Amino acid sequence: MSASLWKSVLITGASRGIGLELVKELAKSSTRPATIIAAARNPPASTDLQEISKTYPGVYIVKLDVDNQQSISSALEEVQSLVGNKGLNCLINNAAIGSSVDLNAVTPETMMKTFQTNTVSPLFVSKAFLPLLQTAAAQSSGMGIHRAAVINISSILGSIESNWGESGNFKSYAYRTSKAALNMVTRCLAVDLGPDGILCMSLHPGWVKTDMGGPNADLTVEESVSGMLSVLSSLTESDNGGFKDYRGQNLPW
Amino acid sequence: MSASLWKSVLITGASRGIGLELVKELAKSSTRPATIIAAARNPPASTDLQEISKTYPGVYIVKLDVDNQQSISSALEEVQSLVGNKGLNCLINNAAIGSSVDLNAVTPETMMKTFQTNTVSPLFVSKAFLPLLQTAAAQSSGMGIHRAAVINISSILGSIESNWGESGNFKSYAYRTSKAALNMVTRCLAVDLGPDGILCMSLHPGWVKTDMGGPNADLTVEESVSGMLSVLSSLTESDNGGFKDYRGQNLPW
Ligand SMILES: NC(=O)c1ccc[n+]([C@@H]2O[C@H](COP(=O)([O-])OP(=O)(O)OC[C@H]3O[C@@H](n4cnc5c(N)ncnc54)[C@H](OP(=O)(O)O)[C@@H]3O)[C@@H](O)[C@H]2O)c1
Ligand SMILES: NC(=O)c1ccc[n+]([C@@H]2O[C@H](COP(=O)([O-])OP(=O)(O)OC[C@H]3O[C@@H](n4cnc5c(N)ncnc54)[C@H](OP(=O)(O)O)[C@@H]3O)[C@@H](O)[C@H]2O)c1
Repeated sequence: MSASLWKSVLITGASRGIGLELVKELAKSSTRPATIIAAARNPPASTDLQEISKTYPGVYIVKLDVDNQQSISSALEEVQSLVGNKGLNCLINNAAIGSSVDLNAVTPETMMKTFQTNTVSPLFVSKAFLPLLQTAAAQSSGMGIHRAAVINISSILGSIESNWGESGNFKSYAYRTSKAALNMVTRCLAVDLGPDGILCMSLHPGWVKTDMGGPNADLTVEESVSGMLSVLSSLTESDNGGFKDYRGQNLPW
Repeated sequence: MSASLWKSVLITGASRGIGLELVKELAKSSTRPATIIAAARNPPASTDLQEISKTYPGVYIVKLDVDNQQSISSALEEVQSLVGNKGLNCLINNAAIGSSVDLNAVTPETMMKTFQTNTVSPLFVSKAFLPLLQTAAAQSSGMGIHRAAVINISSILGSIESNWGESGNFKSYAYRTSKAALNMVTRCLAVDLGPDGILCMSLHPGWVKTDMGGPNADLTVEESVSGMLSVLSSLTESDNGGFKDYRGQNLPW
């Protein structure tokens, strides 16, 4: 990643897992954004995050429960004062909940709750932070994280096409529908914000050893995050409205 | 449609629009299913539906609010007694709500309400009627409406791929995400129920002149419904988990 490619990034769900590792790797990078904003719904509970923010300068912790509109508004004010008139270059909608409920176990409540956190919240976080992204976009040209981007952390499990054969063995009506719907949000935002120079894409981190991915997953968080950061650093206009994995491979909707 | 291809069909949202026309065309057809069950959340309000059920034998009206689990359970009992030990050949999840809210106008409430009716309800109606579909499936072989099928009335607006360029001009975060998520439900059900001989697919009726489609739509309800019925009559195993329009053309996810 070339030096000062981006000035600021905001990552939701940064208390643990992939979100935490994104903050950590960015903080350590020689080509890091000056301002790294780690959003977590309960910051005091994440000692790892506290530790990183104490160790590295320019890592700010902001309280943000993505399901709560008031929390979004308060976080927006804080972030606004952190980034100032430079605006925000990149919003990474990473916070999400897992659920593996098959046809037998699925309930309307699980469907609704998962849709709220995994689909509706990324949309309304994006909508709230749009003015800051627009401010950043107005100061640059081209497309990519040097200008302005919304990265929705999606999943291959949200690929409707891929949900077949062996890949269909992972049963989760709630999680799968929420991530397919998130991919539609990505596409709607890409259509709407592209003309403003704000790129929007869905990114699949791979199957990762976190609380959500479990210990049998394919990748360590370090492997997944280093892949994702390399994908982010090379985004261009042709990636607007796309769906890629951590290796940069295009995924089917 | 060859005579007695299917014995029974249940259509949700049959009070008006496409659902009503499906009931009407089926009732008039010489090759109709013996038992046509028109489900509506407020039957007395639909004089058209009352009229059809008085005119044609074998058209039964059942009260069903797809958003209400108790209403689903009561409807199930009624339908069970109508179809008896032959089971149910075809469930058409047609009931839905429209909404054209752009990024400016969309609210979390519209997102949640639309997801409930257009995505969650078809899933839980399907889940409730599964025993009747399984009963029918056990009495036949192959795949299609002669055996057992769940048809989710989706929309091209739920196609993530198609939401681009000129097609991206129709803005509706709530409706689009709900139908993309419904397509994922289709695919999950196709994976899970296929082995039982129950086919599941998404069907796009075209842009149709109804209360939802508006007066400027491309097609009359008659044109849309006659196309859809011809698609339904020719479904085979290869259509399981598919997404077609009223002309039988495959649509991208
Ligand atoms: N792990 C995988 O294999 C995998 C695969 C594909 C996609 N993904 C996606 O990758 C992203 C990160 O997953 P992960 O594996 O790191 O999951 P994780 O270990 O379970 O962490 C989830 C994170 O989201 C946060 N979160 C949940 N609800 C929130 C809310 N309402 N407000 C704010 N934060 C909230 C959690 O905060 P708390 O600590 O406060 O609960 C936590 O920081 C998710 O979008 C996930 O769907 C993961
Ligand atoms: N028209 C189009 O251009 C178009 C295009 C693509 C897809 N579609 C899809 O085609 C299907 C039918 O649409 P349409 O054009 O016929 O719409 P419509 O004229 O607005 O009729 C909608 C139907 O759904 C029923 N409904 C809504 N919520 C319900 C609930 N909770 N319980 C039971 N019934 C409920 C309505 O009943 P009430 O009378 O009680 O309100 C009505 O019968 C929908 O799935 C729609 O998304 C339509």
